[in-house]
Amino acid sequence: MKKSLFSLRLPHWLAAYESHSGSHFPDILQRMRFVIELSRRSIDEEGGPFAAAIFRIDDGALLASGVNLVIAGRCSLLHAEIVALMRAQLKAGSHDLSAAGLPPCELVTSTEPCAMCLGAIAWSGVRGLVCGARGEDAESIGFDEGEKPPRWQESLERRGISVRENVLREEAADVLWEYRAGGGRIYNPERCAHR
Amino acid sequence: MKKSLFSLRLPHWLAAYESHSGSHFPDILQRMRFVIELSRRSIDEEGGPFAAAIFRIDDGALLASGVNLVIAGRCSLLHAEIVALMRAQLKAGSHDLSAAGLPPCELVTSTEPCAMCLGAIAWSGVRGLVCGARGEDAESIGFDEGEKPPRWQESLERRGISVRENVLREEAADVLWEYRAGGGRIYNPERCAHR
Repeated sequence: MKKSLFSLRLPHWLAAYESHSGSHFPDILQRMRFVIELSRRSIDEEGGPFAAAIFRIDDGALLASGVNLVIAGRCSLLHAEIVALMRAQLKAGSHDLSAAGLPPCELVTSTEPCAMCLGAIAWSGVRGLVCGARGEDAESIGFDEGEKPPRWQESLERRGISVRENVLREEAADVLWEYRAGGGRIYNPERCAHR
Repeated sequence: MKKSLFSLRLPHWLAAYESHSGSHFPDILQRMRFVIELSRRSIDEEGGPFAAAIFRIDDGALLASGVNLVIAGRCSLLHAEIVALMRAQLKAGSHDLSAAGLPPCELVTSTEPCAMCLGAIAWSGVRGLVCGARGEDAESIGFDEGEKPPRWQESLERRGISVRENVLREEAADVLWEYRAGGGRIYNPERCAHR
């Protein structure tokens, strides 16, 4: 493995936000608040209005967080969920966050994942998915969620990934509305307004 | 943007394979043969049996190729299609391969994309998708394709992405069988055998 394919840089403020916010988030509301505040901070830093993080399920230790870096990273794949999963797997040293010896973990996301991210979650090894705003909230400001399987929640549950929706939905959706009100960029609205 | 998130390295043999194979592939069979041979080479190099490449539609110029790097890169997201898309966007300097000034391009893949990759294709800006082996061929050797929308082909077509299937399907599927016969690793078969 010689030639570098891709070197993605994180915004300098993200590590500072993580250290400042603490390392453990025992209950689900604390975890979601961390993620919602991160999505708001991303807007302040001129990024997309989406954030996600991976936590240990048992003690709420923060493993990795992510924000939408599509524009900054010039790569359509860099949704917040993807960035958080890449960082968590890098830290774990495994392509499988359910590998032997690793503590069960969950992905907490400020907005329900798009079709691509749902697929990525199934392959990642996370044991749980927790969503704030709904897909329709993102669509209401012009983003495209892609075509998801009709009952994606059941599909993930069948794979051993628990799904919890509408956790602090209003607070999470408020960030989307703030983004829209502030004139935030909705990528490629003329073709398919993806996140 | 200061801290490095992710630095993915390409196998050293991939650039050599690309230079050796030529830079233009005028017809679709030539493009698919390039990709199928790349998937076979990936097996020889102890990688996954999947390959993909992005070509300009008009003259068949090769923009970027990719192989499955899930195990080598320790990241479940690094399917061949994702690696090829990341490289092509990096080269184009844009998150949108349909951005003004860029020539229309297509993704040619040795096996029909999984659910995650179908989502990624919708966001990438490619104008066409060409598939060799079918999803059921990958499933027949134990890989999991994930849950795709019932009529994903129509869904992509509605987004302006043409879909062509079964191009050299038998030759492409032969590589999957060779991989299986050679004892190739099917990731996490106990949970969900993902690609």
